[in-house]
Amino acid sequence: MPDTAIFDVDGTLVDSNYQHTLAWYRALRRSSITVPIWRIHRTIGMGGDKLITELAGPDAEKTHGDEVRTSWEEEFESLIGEIQPLPGAHELLVEVKRRGFRIVLASSGKAAHVEHSLELIGGRELADAWTTSDDVSDSKPAPDLVNTALQKVSRSAGIMIGDSTWDVIAAEKVNVLTIALLTGGSSRDELNEAGSIAVFDSPQDLLDHLDITPLAHPSAETRRKETH
Amino acid sequence: MPDTAIFDVDGTLVDSNYQHTLAWYRALRRSSITVPIWRIHRTIGMGGDKLITELAGPDAEKTHGDEVRTSWEEEFESLIGEIQPLPGAHELLVEVKRRGFRIVLASSGKAAHVEHSLELIGGRELADAWTTSDDVSDSKPAPDLVNTALQKVSRSAGIMIGDSTWDVIAAEKVNVLTIALLTGGSSRDELNEAGSIAVFDSPQDLLDHLDITPLAHPSAETRRKETH
Repeated sequence: MPDTAIFDVDGTLVDSNYQHTLAWYRALRRSSITVPIWRIHRTIGMGGDKLITELAGPDAEKTHGDEVRTSWEEEFESLIGEIQPLPGAHELLVEVKRRGFRIVLASSGKAAHVEHSLELIGGRELADAWTTSDDVSDSKPAPDLVNTALQKVSRSAGIMIGDSTWDVIAAEKVNVLTIALLTGGSSRDELNEAGSIAVFDSPQDLLDHLDITPLAHPSAETRRKETH
Repeated sequence: MPDTAIFDVDGTLVDSNYQHTLAWYRALRRSSITVPIWRIHRTIGMGGDKLITELAGPDAEKTHGDEVRTSWEEEFESLIGEIQPLPGAHELLVEVKRRGFRIVLASSGKAAHVEHSLELIGGRELADAWTTSDDVSDSKPAPDLVNTALQKVSRSAGIMIGDSTWDVIAAEKVNVLTIALLTGGSSRDELNEAGSIAVFDSPQDLLDHLDITPLAHPSAETRRKETH
């Protein structure tokens, strides 16, 4: 039974995937690479270091990778101000913490972007730890972020809450199950097929159904540790 | 057998759905209505007159509907310049026309936006007719646009090519089948479940597989009419 809830941030707790998608579209176009936007959307959640290879091939990554990532930071900077928390994000963290789970906010975003998201969801006071791109050497779908998130707290049995197929794939590699949300814009079927154990509409919808998920309560062993 | 190919434009031939989505998000926010962006994305393809009710309820439509639609035009105006044609869009129209189909570009967009899209795909020279919001009194998922599209040409048996579940639903109401593309950002399963007869990645992917679709060739009766 899990004792640590690992929350993806972008697309799961804050409504940022569509801005991320458009920022990549614009950044790629600055280097004369045009990719259908729906394909960019489906790569969101994977690391920015892997995304260009996935979308445009290894040659594009080699020739334009760093340049596109620099453009991306500029483009995303102009969109970050409009990003809003998702319904129930703060309340979900409050309730999961109240039930005795450790909470780690697992983002591979830039430190400044993660700070901004923490503000939006009141995450700084609630989370036991959080990660940024500085903490992770190999990005999703590699499992490093999930491992790093677990290492940030003393517990070892995690449950992932994410919005993209990449969250599910990364977590599965280290035997961590994922509850998925539709908030990132992937469909129920896509998330089910990737292997998520349940799919909810939003943080609020997950909160309303906590008792039928592994977030109902932490393991007995964990609770013993807490009370003695 | 169909003799008229009815092409949806936004999201099907031009890569505009993500800009439409973000323009609605921004327009709604201007009226202090915040909706998760993935839900807005799923309404794209339905008429702007129905979208606010769908997302925020009839009271929001009554109080803010016209105001949000005015904001939307301004917001979309600032994004239209970055919209690109989808891979194979022009070539698909050329080939479907060469095979003897009438082509109608069925958009419920504003006339100026439709003009812009026609430019991007070289549609003016290829299409037998096109529609704009001026031609349609009741928007998708109502079937009026599909009927209007068919009335614009002398033929009567249509096949729809679209990217959203609303295209499929509108066409089905007048017994027109739909071939769907993933280019709008809905998933294969969502489009299949809505009732599309086949799903392809892009206009180019459909072009590469024309022979296995009802766009292989127009009906024999149609061809007789053409040659005699």
